[in-house]
Amino acid sequence: MAKPILHIYKIGGSILDSKEAWQKFLLHFQGREEAAIIVHGGGKVASSLLEELGIPVKMVEGRRITDAETLRVVTMAYAGLLNKQVVADLKAVGRRAIGLTGADGDCIRAVKRPVKDIDYGFVGDIESVNSALLTQMIREGYLPALAPLTHDGNGQLLNTNADTIAAAVAVALTANFDVRLYYILDLPGVLQDIGDPESLIRELDLSDLNSLQTSGTVSAGMIPKLSNAKDALSKGVSNVVLTDVEHLAEAQRGNAGSQLTLKDRS
Amino acid sequence: MAKPILHIYKIGGSILDSKEAWQKFLLHFQGREEAAIIVHGGGKVASSLLEELGIPVKMVEGRRITDAETLRVVTMAYAGLLNKQVVADLKAVGRRAIGLTGADGDCIRAVKRPVKDIDYGFVGDIESVNSALLTQMIREGYLPALAPLTHDGNGQLLNTNADTIAAAVAVALTANFDVRLYYILDLPGVLQDIGDPESLIRELDLSDLNSLQTSGTVSAGMIPKLSNAKDALSKGVSNVVLTDVEHLAEAQRGNAGSQLTLKDRS
Repeated sequence: MAKPILHIYKIGGSILDSKEAWQKFLLHFQGREEAAIIVHGGGKVASSLLEELGIPVKMVEGRRITDAETLRVVTMAYAGLLNKQVVADLKAVGRRAIGLTGADGDCIRAVKRPVKDIDYGFVGDIESVNSALLTQMIREGYLPALAPLTHDGNGQLLNTNADTIAAAVAVALTANFDVRLYYILDLPGVLQDIGDPESLIRELDLSDLNSLQTSGTVSAGMIPKLSNAKDALSKGVSNVVLTDVEHLAEAQRGNAGSQLTLKDRS
Repeated sequence: MAKPILHIYKIGGSILDSKEAWQKFLLHFQGREEAAIIVHGGGKVASSLLEELGIPVKMVEGRRITDAETLRVVTMAYAGLLNKQVVADLKAVGRRAIGLTGADGDCIRAVKRPVKDIDYGFVGDIESVNSALLTQMIREGYLPALAPLTHDGNGQLLNTNADTIAAAVAVALTANFDVRLYYILDLPGVLQDIGDPESLIRELDLSDLNSLQTSGTVSAGMIPKLSNAKDALSKGVSNVVLTDVEHLAEAQRGNAGSQLTLKDRS
């Protein structure tokens, strides 16, 4: 028997920081009972809150460092403010969502990233996903809404990249679902020319990420996202699509966005 | 067939604001697989955060008013900081908790309190509890950990008293469980003489709350809690006990704390 379809939507600042885009995204769920998970990033909320509290943003080599104070603030911003508003707003369009961090139900276990050249602080690299819990919630008609936080199982919360969470959860759920993963951006997909929406690459083979970067087909900033996508595709996720919210429904039908593929998929 | 026992623990500042008391409370769960729910209040975290952010605490006639700014802060403090640390710490003692507000899974629906003499702002009076969701989580071995926030189903989060949430959830779950409710205080129970722990009232009949207050048996501050307890008892909750964390295990066996009763229970 074919597995039921599960749609996983990763949303970030382009949705969370714009009231208009957020409303558009919400309306996508109105009147739909599709099996779905939403993974949200942080948007500007954490940065604003850090600023409001006078806590300096710590960066090392362009990467944000999550010290104890920053972890406290992102926990408030991601698990408190953002996650609960996402859940409350989804109910207003008819979907019963359950907001979760990786600590809830031991949903996503991680290990604190080992210190090598850089000490990233309280950042977690994913070890395991409790797919039984997520599967059961979905089968009961609930929509898990995941905040970008994990835990180590010993009482320590950890900051974890939302793109990576989306890919790891997508892979874990392939056991029970035909999983389609959407990374929602503020661009219609991968553009040949960043200034020209018409230059959308409709299908992008991720088999050789290095050459995509060296040829300039994709920007360096896009590589971590594509690397997550490649990982998801190589581990059984059916579709990974990059799209903006405007083209989401079309992209879901395969008629918009950049459909990512893995030609040498084993 | 007898219903399975469910223990509901309401904890407030006496536990949340003391590292020592919190550790004692956590150890209560180590090695126990009892069906349980924890309902937590806010403790000092919200007040400290309001202060840190320079947001004045608004009081009218001794009652805190939840304006939009305050709601934002309590959402961060209760659903973010406190709730997620509760969940992460419980895993460290072996329990898989799922942190929830009333918005999650449409768990606790409320209506914004109508404005009469006082406008309490974004405060919710409970309308309904999604006992099916909580029951299922408990049956699967998870421990729901509830933050003192509800929602109106239309996207509005609401601040709701944790004592009241504990009583409402206890009542809703009597359909499936033999429910025992524990209000954990910084006192061993109701004391005849507040300065003398030996004056503990082991059994307190709540049939006539008015006379308990006028006779000075209980302080005015205790009345809302006892009123919630009375409501719970009158609607099928088996036991309601007031205790401190030191005597919790004993109180659970009926050998400590103040056991509340309703002599004219119908």
